[in-house]
Amino acid sequence: MKRLFLLLLCLTPCWAALGDEGMWLFNQVPRQLLHERYQFDATEAWLNHVLKASIRLNSGGSGSFISRDGLLISNHHVGANALQQLSSEKKNYLKDGFYARTRDQEIRCLDMELLVLQSIEDVTTRVNAAVPADADPAAAFAARRKIIATIENESLAQTGLRSDVVTLWQGGAYHLYRYKRYTDVRLVFAPEQQMAFYGGDPDNFEFPRYDLDICLFRAYENGQPAHIADYLRVSPEGPRDGNLVLVSGHPGRTSRLLTEAELESVRDVALPFRLKYLKWEETMLDAWSARSEENARRAKQMSSSVKNNRKRGDGQLAGLLNPAVMADKDKEESAFKARLANRPQFADALAAYDKIAAAARILDQQFIEYNLIEAGQGFNCESFRFARTLLRAGQERPKPNGERLREYSDAGRATLELALMSEKPIYVDFETITLADSLTFLACQLSTDDPLVQRVLAGKTPGVRAAELIHGTKVRDIDFRRQLYVGGAEVVDAMRDPMTELARAVDSEARALRKTFDEQNEVKSQAHAALARAQLALDGNAGYPDATFTLRLAFGTVEGIQALGTELPPFTTFSGLYRKVEQMKERPPFDLTPRWVRRKGSVNMETPLNFISTADIIGGNSGSPVVDRAGDFVGIIFDSNLQALPWDYAYSDVQGRATSVDSAGILEALEHIYRAQPLVREMVIGKASP
Amino acid sequence: MKRLFLLLLCLTPCWAALGDEGMWLFNQVPRQLLHERYQFDATEAWLNHVLKASIRLNSGGSGSFISRDGLLISNHHVGANALQQLSSEKKNYLKDGFYARTRDQEIRCLDMELLVLQSIEDVTTRVNAAVPADADPAAAFAARRKIIATIENESLAQTGLRSDVVTLWQGGAYHLYRYKRYTDVRLVFAPEQQMAFYGGDPDNFEFPRYDLDICLFRAYENGQPAHIADYLRVSPEGPRDGNLVLVSGHPGRTSRLLTEAELESVRDVALPFRLKYLKWEETMLDAWSARSEENARRAKQMSSSVKNNRKRGDGQLAGLLNPAVMADKDKEESAFKARLANRPQFADALAAYDKIAAAARILDQQFIEYNLIEAGQGFNCESFRFARTLLRAGQERPKPNGERLREYSDAGRATLELALMSEKPIYVDFETITLADSLTFLACQLSTDDPLVQRVLAGKTPGVRAAELIHGTKVRDIDFRRQLYVGGAEVVDAMRDPMTELARAVDSEARALRKTFDEQNEVKSQAHAALARAQLALDGNAGYPDATFTLRLAFGTVEGIQALGTELPPFTTFSGLYRKVEQMKERPPFDLTPRWVRRKGSVNMETPLNFISTADIIGGNSGSPVVDRAGDFVGIIFDSNLQALPWDYAYSDVQGRATSVDSAGILEALEHIYRAQPLVREMVIGKASP
Repeated sequence: MKRLFLLLLCLTPCWAALGDEGMWLFNQVPRQLLHERYQFDATEAWLNHVLKASIRLNSGGSGSFISRDGLLISNHHVGANALQQLSSEKKNYLKDGFYARTRDQEIRCLDMELLVLQSIEDVTTRVNAAVPADADPAAAFAARRKIIATIENESLAQTGLRSDVVTLWQGGAYHLYRYKRYTDVRLVFAPEQQMAFYGGDPDNFEFPRYDLDICLFRAYENGQPAHIADYLRVSPEGPRDGNLVLVSGHPGRTSRLLTEAELESVRDVALPFRLKYLKWEETMLDAWSARSEENARRAKQMSSSVKNNRKRGDGQLAGLLNPAVMADKDKEESAFKARLANRPQFADALAAYDKIAAAARILDQQFIEYNLIEAGQGFNCESFRFARTLLRAGQERPKPNGERLREYSDAGRATLELALMSEKPIYVDFETITLADSLTFLACQLSTDDPLVQRVLAGKTPGVRAAELIHGTKVRDIDFRRQLYVGGAEVVDAMRDPMTELARAVDSEARALRKTFDEQNEVKSQAHAALARAQLALDGNAGYPDATFTLRLAFGTVEGIQALGTELPPFTTFSGLYRKVEQMKERPPFDLTPRWVRRKGSVNMETPLNFISTADIIGGNSGSPVVDRAGDFVGIIFDSNLQALPWDYAYSDVQGRATSVDSAGILEALEHIYRAQPLVREMVIGKASP
Repeated sequence: MKRLFLLLLCLTPCWAALGDEGMWLFNQVPRQLLHERYQFDATEAWLNHVLKASIRLNSGGSGSFISRDGLLISNHHVGANALQQLSSEKKNYLKDGFYARTRDQEIRCLDMELLVLQSIEDVTTRVNAAVPADADPAAAFAARRKIIATIENESLAQTGLRSDVVTLWQGGAYHLYRYKRYTDVRLVFAPEQQMAFYGGDPDNFEFPRYDLDICLFRAYENGQPAHIADYLRVSPEGPRDGNLVLVSGHPGRTSRLLTEAELESVRDVALPFRLKYLKWEETMLDAWSARSEENARRAKQMSSSVKNNRKRGDGQLAGLLNPAVMADKDKEESAFKARLANRPQFADALAAYDKIAAAARILDQQFIEYNLIEAGQGFNCESFRFARTLLRAGQERPKPNGERLREYSDAGRATLELALMSEKPIYVDFETITLADSLTFLACQLSTDDPLVQRVLAGKTPGVRAAELIHGTKVRDIDFRRQLYVGGAEVVDAMRDPMTELARAVDSEARALRKTFDEQNEVKSQAHAALARAQLALDGNAGYPDATFTLRLAFGTVEGIQALGTELPPFTTFSGLYRKVEQMKERPPFDLTPRWVRRKGSVNMETPLNFISTADIIGGNSGSPVVDRAGDFVGIIFDSNLQALPWDYAYSDVQGRATSVDSAGILEALEHIYRAQPLVREMVIGKASP
């Protein structure tokens, strides 16, 4: 970490250098720039092929098809949820890995959903036309929600494809994305988590790195492997130092177009609260995991995710606590305001800043309560999430589609039902401990005298109350959930399950927070739209919008880093891994699994394992294919370095890098360590052996 | 943890049952009660002998002399600081243990101080007489500070003994304690930390338990082993189930006499903040420790202490979030108020409740700032602590003794100088990481716009600022510290060391917080004194005061627990330890050191290792001797169970227990595992072999 602090020092003066910045919309790819800088022509055919080979996973990451027969690759940490759900005390796929040598050994995942983009349509005019210019925030929000639901529903009915209207440029544009869905997804291969996440939390967001962070699945349709026209060919060589690489994936969220006022909210309200919550949770998860191996297994997924988010949050906060970052934002904003001043046609854009600031302050004031009560952090357990969904599904579904909370709209119904009817294992002891811990946090944040806290705790300690709720609820029973979901509000009300009653007990506060949240975001949307229009009018093409967990194209160069006077090359190799194991004396998390020790002699030590590039990525890009000019798969994104954590707010390639597993390393490990020859063959020739 | 929640349920109805409650003053031992309940006569001679054999250690624990030749025993976790300070990257006494087979192998500790109580004198009348009845809080505080300093100074001059005026009953009484000091303390024996703290954080505050939590030192005077007239004979058998045991030690702090208003502050302000801070720190320490073995070694002591305090804090908060606890306090308070009502002679006692509540609210409002800025949690590193002491010593020492901040009074001078001139190793990387992390926490708590935060960070990120301060300061150099300390304010000012300048930059805020803190505590003291007087007038003997890290006598019975329908016996044995190791498959922290594996065959498996009793203890009692009727050492306190964590607020023996290492187990391990025959002989016959 000390290194991070020193490096941030150097970062500042170059903050304005953009280099390979950009998470571009597939329908607005900067072709001229790519041509000029890289002599690369992104043809329609190239783009369309890569787009259709790209996958969004509902566990929050990206992936790509790599064979005609439905084989797809993502990160181990993206597939980890599925692995955890398939595991039990006897069979730990997360820890031990998995390989289906034959088709019938492939195991169906419990609630995995793949979305594959088919088309993009700009519906901005239609959305904005439906919102009266003089509507107040509540009316404007309702009108916008309604037209969006209508567009989505029409599209679903017409095409049968999942249809999402995506808000871009914080409200500057609305695009309709249509996806093909796959829900029969089967596990084909996973390495041991220790090898996928070699170096653990200490090496997370670091480079050099030596991780085989991959997981292979197969998409099925009608009980047969899906036939995939657009899949990526896997390059046996991977990329070279200095090569152009392109990344097609789903960056989750960036905050680069936020105004200074919004960035201050992130720095002063959102990140401090999020970090306190994460560190509170992490302590509990670590303490509980230490008590037994089975505890550790049950907590593993949540624990990894919390640690990852905590390390990312620490990095982001360190970035925002750098006054130079705020000063740059301030300078940029002042300069743009000066250009808008005294030009009546931009009056709305000039006024936008104050509107955004006012909305941000309102959201700040309810930020903690919103997260605890509406986002559910105060009731952290699967049982509460089920109960809340059942309660609200009963309330929302009778309403017209356009008037429902967004997650209950017809367009999202299939996805919601998949999650609600998941057969994933849920553990009573783990549910109790996470609920007790978050109820304690809730009481600490809101004070024990708060009427909501008193209602929630019902005169008991958090631990006693959590045990009572978890033991009393039936929502972990899938048949019970189906009964409540199908029966709707009447059945939910009649059953009086303790957990749906808890959700009900906080529902009026939760909905009030949600209402303010939605309305103030509508205010911000309209203001950002005005800013986006002004930017377009003044500077032409407005670049790329902030990330929205939708498909984007990034590009960059395979390139090392200058660190403390020495040049760090962009590739690591298997020999580097084995050297590190020795240096760290095999102390966990720097140890190897027995298979990697045993097969050391079979490996070509100079094969590249991981590499870094300047491509502009962020969380959600995990599992994104890295492709070359030919559109071939040369690697898979799995991380960035610490210096790229502030990319949430501003890109810089001075020290920031995206980290990938090299395709050559993947094939080397599969062939010589896992002896998965049929898989290697399928990946190289693009179809399964008959 | 689930067990804790269930057990707390049962705790409630019996909250009022006192059993063996009491941390009694040695000059107010409940002899009649001891006689009636246990047919035990605590004679003057018995008390005086045990008192003079008892030791307070400046690392925050207790101990006792166990040989005529200065040998003393405390807990490993009390001595751990000394072990850490004597260790280096090459020699890790904390991890590997230590045994001086001969006198000249004993290693002098760097800044250990032992205090042995010699006498107690009631000075309440003199203290109160010096405080004018009509003085406002500031004047009353100043007057009280002055008379206390005068009494301490007179006593020091007359007797040469360290003299502390101790505030008892929250201000109800003032006693003068005189101590003999030993500062030449040498390490004799320590087991490996893994065996002293077997089961680590998961088993901390749990029972059954299997820890050899001991550490042996020898006190020297004039270069020779100190000659100790009053030492405890070590019992080779330890106690039996059902035996009376007595504990002579230094409980740190309890809050049993707090009013309801004060208890609410603890529940709603103090504990939530403390836990957020501890969990924030723990996450950083764990992440840093995971990076390398040497990091882990450097962070070990702080890390253990943070984990211990976090687990204790979680337990205390769970206790206070039990509404029954507050309801009992409320009932008790209402009943007492009813007895005071309409009786003019108790008007001041009746008014005391509101005064305390008002003072508590003022202290609540500045609680977070006080802890961050005056208590220094926002600047967490040794360098800052040195710098603050140097700055303030320069400012305070020229003032009259009675007007200084208490820690700079003449009575405390020797202790302050011992700590300030300590040669303990300090690590630049660890200093930087702890300072950076706490500066980040400071910014998160007070907001980046706070003028103090801006002054502290000086336009840099916490990481950059921490690195600059730690690399820039010279206070880690003992000669530099001596120069500044001897030179006083003029030299401190002239040197402009970056860390003393940081301390200076926050000093006016820090002193203002301290002033309010001292004044409001004076208000509370006077109010509590009125309550104590009323209690005494109404009920005679007022029991025992809350713990103040001064010598107390507790007593209880060796007794198992009824848990979930089965009877848990009070003793564990070596065979239980080896069984647990097997059950847990030697997974850390449930593994053994090689020595314990190797010597398994030599051990008498049925020897008791740990035992529990109903004696009333709290943090600070760690290392207290457990003695029998004869005054012989039969064990050493090292922990309590989770159910005893709420003892901070109210004692209950329904499930709460104190945990000790059995003297028989200590001798068994020393003889058969560590093969320390000369030590065993010295402990059994009470003097070293010639």
